[in-house]
Amino acid sequence: MSQRIVGIKDASGAVVVAATDEVSGTAEVLDGLEAFWADPAGAIARGGTGVTIELEGAEIVPPVLPGARVICIGLNYLKHVAEGSYAHDDHPPYPTLFARWPASLTVGGAAIPVPLDEDGLDWEGEVMAYVGAPLMDASPEEALAAVVGYSTFNDVTARRAQKLTSQWILGKNADRSGPLGPLVPAAEVGDLRDGLTVTTRVNGEEVQRGSTDQMVYTVGETLSLISRTFTLRPGDMLATGTPAGVGYARTPPWLLQPGDEVEVEVERLGTLRNRIVAHAERAGLVGGS
Amino acid sequence: MSQRIVGIKDASGAVVVAATDEVSGTAEVLDGLEAFWADPAGAIARGGTGVTIELEGAEIVPPVLPGARVICIGLNYLKHVAEGSYAHDDHPPYPTLFARWPASLTVGGAAIPVPLDEDGLDWEGEVMAYVGAPLMDASPEEALAAVVGYSTFNDVTARRAQKLTSQWILGKNADRSGPLGPLVPAAEVGDLRDGLTVTTRVNGEEVQRGSTDQMVYTVGETLSLISRTFTLRPGDMLATGTPAGVGYARTPPWLLQPGDEVEVEVERLGTLRNRIVAHAERAGLVGGS
Repeated sequence: MSQRIVGIKDASGAVVVAATDEVSGTAEVLDGLEAFWADPAGAIARGGTGVTIELEGAEIVPPVLPGARVICIGLNYLKHVAEGSYAHDDHPPYPTLFARWPASLTVGGAAIPVPLDEDGLDWEGEVMAYVGAPLMDASPEEALAAVVGYSTFNDVTARRAQKLTSQWILGKNADRSGPLGPLVPAAEVGDLRDGLTVTTRVNGEEVQRGSTDQMVYTVGETLSLISRTFTLRPGDMLATGTPAGVGYARTPPWLLQPGDEVEVEVERLGTLRNRIVAHAERAGLVGGS
Repeated sequence: MSQRIVGIKDASGAVVVAATDEVSGTAEVLDGLEAFWADPAGAIARGGTGVTIELEGAEIVPPVLPGARVICIGLNYLKHVAEGSYAHDDHPPYPTLFARWPASLTVGGAAIPVPLDEDGLDWEGEVMAYVGAPLMDASPEEALAAVVGYSTFNDVTARRAQKLTSQWILGKNADRSGPLGPLVPAAEVGDLRDGLTVTTRVNGEEVQRGSTDQMVYTVGETLSLISRTFTLRPGDMLATGTPAGVGYARTPPWLLQPGDEVEVEVERLGTLRNRIVAHAERAGLVGGS
């Protein structure tokens, strides 16, 4: 059984990083959030502190620093490029990168509200990579070696907002639109080039199936490129793009509606499950966070 | 003399928000960073705590939460649209929004290194607006009323990285590429529609001159639009776009080189001055921060 690492927020708002044990229904604390990301490989290698938390009733949050950069690859599986708005362009010679702010992130089980002006939300099942060491002008090999773990990710997208102008970020940062599964240490995941199957299901029906060996730009190449413009820090994250099968590109388009359940399953990383709710629930969900 | 609000980092790494007094060479603490943004209008209205810090030797930092969202308008002055890569497109009916992460921000006086693959850096003198209250599905009037202050901003751009693909964010987040001047309370600035002059100078030569009354999308309209997709929080920021006169659009192109000094001056907000340094200095500057 691989290690599954989550954040847990206490009553004071402080976040600890902990490894869950589903058999006992507890999590063992590895470190505080800031301390964990000061040396994540060390914290994982050292293992638990012996302090355990009951998972029932605990507030699970992403184990993500507020100041982390969530860099996302937009077009990284050729069949997804072919189905979308950019199908008639040449495939770009560099990865297409857009931004999420950590404020948009959430966890499995969270309800995701449809924003006011959207007809629904679109799914994008992905693998997220977590940077574990500083990277400046790094080679692809150095960059890959700095990845400390991976998780499932659903890059839930407000398509109307995404496509209002040439730049996508508004529609990529809707409230609670970026659920993440637990971080699994890189040593337990191996190389994405091995080909991990990425599957997305809506109400149990499979809508996306790809393999991570179909990625055009590898994690190491992409982080290397980024590090030539800005210095990556431990805790920064790279969303590696989604396979073909998103909803907006279908005929007719298919968007997630309130009541729908969406699942992203990635081999070795587990299954991430979220429910879509109506816009009317947005204030209740976001006001308290 | 208007109030000028900065962040000051102490030896432990904690940041306080303080109002500077250039006559005495001191700053009076308003509150801790998190506490300030919990109620920024209240903290400004209450005024100083009586605790003062000598400015000489103090580490000035942006008074910005690590988890703030820095939303930037890309094309907001018609003459700037006309000079750039998007000149042949229709003017978009919505503001073009891109993202900075707070990790890219710095202050006046900071040296800005040229990234490895760039022939230089470009200037974009701007006004930054600071959100002071939560905004969800807000009207333009509500959104404008929630703005707690403004500052100067230079959206220093790595043009090659910006234009590698359709999405701009890589070239908009280079290390130390987003210097900010002190925050000036909104009550002292008035309405940007009054027309504040925005001027950029390179080594003393004027390269941009515009007026904030030439903006296509107002601060209130833009924040209102954003709030329909994600909920704005106190501390989130809106960069309002740059006037005509950037370097890459000139014939021949003109980019900032190591040794150059770039200044952004905005009426009522002051002057922001930064120096460009060579790539070789990047590790020394960024490693320690």
